[in-house]
This record gives sequence, structure tokens and C-alpha cells, in this order.
Amino acid sequence: MSAVLKSEGFDLRGWSVSRLDRVEQALTRWVAADVPDGHHHPARDALGHDAHVLGHEAPAALREAMRYAVLDGGKRLRPLLVLAAREAVRGHEPDAAHAGLDDAALRAACAAELIHAYSLVHDDMPCMDNDILRRGKPTVHVRFGEAQALLAGDALQALAFELLTPDTDDAALPAVQARLCRLLAKAAGFEGMAGGQAIDLASIGLQLSEDQLRGMHRLKTGALLQGSVMLGAACVQDRGSLPVTALPALASYGAALGLAFQVVDDILDVTADSATLGKTAGKDAAQDKPTYVSVLGLDRSLSYAQELLSQALTALDESGLDDTRALCALADMVVNRAS
Amino acid sequence: MSAVLKSEGFDLRGWSVSRLDRVEQALTRWVAADVPDGHHHPARDALGHDAHVLGHEAPAALREAMRYAVLDGGKRLRPLLVLAAREAVRGHEPDAAHAGLDDAALRAACAAELIHAYSLVHDDMPCMDNDILRRGKPTVHVRFGEAQALLAGDALQALAFELLTPDTDDAALPAVQARLCRLLAKAAGFEGMAGGQAIDLASIGLQLSEDQLRGMHRLKTGALLQGSVMLGAACVQDRGSLPVTALPALASYGAALGLAFQVVDDILDVTADSATLGKTAGKDAAQDKPTYVSVLGLDRSLSYAQELLSQALTALDESGLDDTRALCALADMVVNRAS
Repeated sequence: MSAVLKSEGFDLRGWSVSRLDRVEQALTRWVAADVPDGHHHPARDALGHDAHVLGHEAPAALREAMRYAVLDGGKRLRPLLVLAAREAVRGHEPDAAHAGLDDAALRAACAAELIHAYSLVHDDMPCMDNDILRRGKPTVHVRFGEAQALLAGDALQALAFELLTPDTDDAALPAVQARLCRLLAKAAGFEGMAGGQAIDLASIGLQLSEDQLRGMHRLKTGALLQGSVMLGAACVQDRGSLPVTALPALASYGAALGLAFQVVDDILDVTADSATLGKTAGKDAAQDKPTYVSVLGLDRSLSYAQELLSQALTALDESGLDDTRALCALADMVVNRAS
Repeated sequence: MSAVLKSEGFDLRGWSVSRLDRVEQALTRWVAADVPDGHHHPARDALGHDAHVLGHEAPAALREAMRYAVLDGGKRLRPLLVLAAREAVRGHEPDAAHAGLDDAALRAACAAELIHAYSLVHDDMPCMDNDILRRGKPTVHVRFGEAQALLAGDALQALAFELLTPDTDDAALPAVQARLCRLLAKAAGFEGMAGGQAIDLASIGLQLSEDQLRGMHRLKTGALLQGSVMLGAACVQDRGSLPVTALPALASYGAALGLAFQVVDDILDVTADSATLGKTAGKDAAQDKPTYVSVLGLDRSLSYAQELLSQALTALDESGLDDTRALCALADMVVNRAS
């Protein structure tokens, strides 16, 4: 029985709806939530001064830009990957799953989304892709100005790490928190997403080989998608309780899925229209950026996406994990999506 | 005997030189260190593909921008505060100090500096302060372009959290790592530095009251300076071993020092020249930004700085900590510096 069949009959839509509901609620609660009348952590004013700042206008602008960037849009693929991976490993917990670990998974899901959201805000800025449309809405810098967009992205990145390290009694163990921070920082940074974007910048107008293109995307989009899978798996308290094959298999799954996502993105950039995508179609070609379609052609790109799906599913087959249905179904969705 | 006298005879210069030597070495080693021939974590290429990317040109540009932003410049006040606070609490460890905790303090020192460095890179960009001179050199976007500056700042923030969460046998306990991430994320984010910068943006051309100005600076510069002190203190494995007065006193010290730093910065912006400062003098007035000098006048700003110094030293007196000489001397240096 192939891995694809394993997810047959699995209700991805129903599964996603209930998870997305929790994610949206959490993001709404956690992303720069309303602070009454500009009072910022008055307890921290250790000089004993009144903590009033500037009424609520100034911090409100940043708060609004952060919320605009994150809420009410996006497929939330990264949060779904975190939660699906968490569910795949949960059955292997030696004890009944610790509630703090599911809270940790929800926090990790939101943190991955915040990193993604900040990268879009910065990527859309005039000095980068200079894009005006994202998720069917004006981009953050168009709506709030460049300076506010820059700060909103910066603050979203910091917030991701703040979410991962709650200081509450029912929080996940510090070892889990530290592990989540480590994974997310690597996925986001120089050897991950930011590094990939730098390669992307440098590759405009160049002819890339397939290997070079893969290398760029492995970092630019792949690192955070793979990282999301690994964040979910990292919520296991004792990694020794997992089958030895589990983490390498999840890493392979995440790598294949991450690349597949980009191949399909490149295909859709050519075959879909802006209204369907919710962002400007055809912009890679317009900006003279190398894509899978420009390097491999459309037909080979389509077959490569299917090959990557097969690699992802094979990895899950070999993971030794009991329940990988949601991960299977998400990989299928990524490759066969229409937008 | 006043707190000022306690640091008399303390050789701040000698103390700083040896600490700065360790900090500079660590930053040189940790900030986007050289990767031979574009090989990026080949172990992570879970698809088994050759990990060659684009030769070493593309990631090298980002690496160079990151290193340029961090190395070879800066007073390193935040690292010194981290290390001085760590030394103030070390004597209260129940056991002989754990080597991992001193490694954690060095990492925290560097992480605080990376957050500071990234904020300068972004703050200097054309959409923010549009400054071309920093530490006597062209700013990062002038030297490397705006897109690279944006990415370098982003990658430096991620690197800060990566530094705090090493996965080595001799690393600090996960509880210390998680605590450091939590403190740094809060100091850097919406309720800290980034929030303060948003208020700063919104206040250009406005008349601020002294309370409003203090509120802005408490976040913009104060949060990370105070945060640096708290990072150093957070390296204590068991916070219960500290005098109960220690952490509140260090928070007060950090708040007073943070504000004093800004008051003196505003004074120097008026009284010093660009060559002495290593950055453009007089730019606050030129940009119509409210400053302590514009709100209080020069004389009252000078006496306010001394009053804050006195508050900082009094807090140390009341901390119950044995050895606060380096912290005392640093506060004195901040208030009585010439650049």
C-alpha cells in the first residue's frame, strides 16, 4: 500500500478547519494584542514613573501594521505542518501527552507563521521585490509606509521567539522551549530563509543550473517549511521515545515538501492569474528571476513536483511513525493546489 | 560610603579590555563565520543533493554585510553590561560556577550586541533615519545596498536567538537558555526596542512632554540596555539563591542607566562633533526630533543625567549583591562619557 493511499479517506479539510480555528484564535490573541490606552507593561517601569507613553496613537500604528501583516489571510501552511508533525509524534510519547506540549505546538505553529509573515513584509518592500499586492490586499508598506513595515517585520520576528518561551506554570519544559528557539532561529537566519533571500537577490538576471536553483530554494522557502515540520516533532519531550527513523524521515519529508512547494509556486506564477493567487502573477519572469519553469520548462516542472511528492510520501512510509495521515494529505495538497 | 566610592579604585579600563577581548573573539567566530566554497550545512540536505549553491558569491555578500555591521566598531556597552551583571550574581551561585553559565553569559553578551547592531542597520536605512555615517564608516545600506542591509539586519536578529540556544554538551541548562530567549525577545520586540522606534517615528515634529519622551526612550534604548543587565543576571542557574532584592534592584539600575544613556546621547548630539561621535552630530535637531535637550534644556539635561546616575548607584547599593563594582563603574562611564 502506498503512502498516498494511507491518507485516502482522511478528511484534510475537516482536520485543517479545526486546527486553523485554534491557530487564528491564538494569533489574534498573541499578535500585539490591544494594550489599553497606551499602557505598556507598567510593571516594568522600574523608575516608578507613570508609564503613559504617547496616548495610544504611536504604538497602535505598529500594532496595526503587525496585525495587518499576520491576521486575516494566508493559507497557514506552516502552522498546519507544525501541528501535523506534532500529531504524528504524539502517539509515541511514553506518558499521556503533556498539555504543555500541545500548547508548545500551538505556539510553535504561530511562531513559524510570524516568521513567514515578517519575511513577506520585508520581501515586498521597494528595496526588495517592490510588490504592492499580497493576499489580495495592499502590502504592508503600501498601507502603513515603509518605516512602519520595516519595524513591523522586525517586531514580528522578535514576537516569534517570545511566543516560544512563555513563563507560565503550564508551559512546556524549558528543554522543549530552547529546542524550538534553536530550530526556528536556524530556519530563519543566515543559513536558512534570510540566506536564501540573499542568494535570490544575487541571482536576478543570472542563468542558474537546476542545482543552483534548488540550493537557493532549499534555503529561501525550504528551510522554514522543513523547520515547521521539525518544530512539531520537537514538541516530543523525550526524543528517545521516537523510532530512530522518525526525525531523519521527517527531515526528508520536509525537504521534499519545501522544494515541491516552490516548484508549484513557480508553475502557478506562470499558469494562474493574480486574482486566483491573491498576489501579482508573472512577477518572477517580469523581474527576470530564474524559476523552475524557466530552468526546466513547464512539463518537466510538473513531473518534478510529482516526483518530490512521491519522495515526501516515501519518507513518511519509512518514518516508523504511526499516524502520518495529515502530513501525507498536506504534501498532496501542496503539490496539487490551484493557488 | 556611597556607591560611587565603592567603584573607586576599580580598574574599569582593565576590566573592560579583557572582557571586550573575549566578546570580539566570540563575535568574530559566531557572526556568519566563513563557510568554505558556499557549502551550507550539507548535512541538512535531506534529499541527498549536492549542497553546492552559487559558489560563494551570493551568501558571501550577506555574510560580509552582517560582519561589517557588527565587527570592528562600537563601544560594546550592552555586552559589558551583560558580563558585569553576570559577575555581580556569580558569587551567589550555591555551587562553584558552572562553566556553561559563563559560556551562556558570553553568548548573551553577543546576542544583545547583535540585536543592537541589527537595529542600527535598519534604523540607518533611507526609510528610517537615512543616515550615511555610523561608527565613522559608511552605513551598511550605503556600502552594500538597501536590500542587503534589510536582510543583514533580519539575519542578525535570528542569529541572536541561535547564539542563545547552543546544542552542545557543555551548554547552559535549557532553563537558562529559554529564560535568555524570553528576556531578549521582549527587550527587542513590540513592547521593547521596536515599539520605542515606532513611537520615535510618530513623534517627529511633535512637542513631547518629559513623560512622553521618557516613555519613548524607556522602550527605544532603555529596554535593551536594561535587558542586557537582566540577561547577565539570568545566567544564575537557581534564581532562588540570589538575595530577594537583587533582581528588582538590577531592573532599577538598568532602567536608570538606560535613560541616562539617552539623556547623555541627546546632550552629546548637541555638544560634540561628528568626528568625536563617529556618527552625524546634530541630526536630531535637523530631523526635528524631540530630545532631552529640546524638552529640558541643556543645563537641566546635565543635572538629570547625574540624578539618574545616582539612582542607578543607589539601586546597586540596595541590591544585596556582593560585587557590583563593574556595574557601578559602567554607570559612571555612561553618564560621564565624551562620545
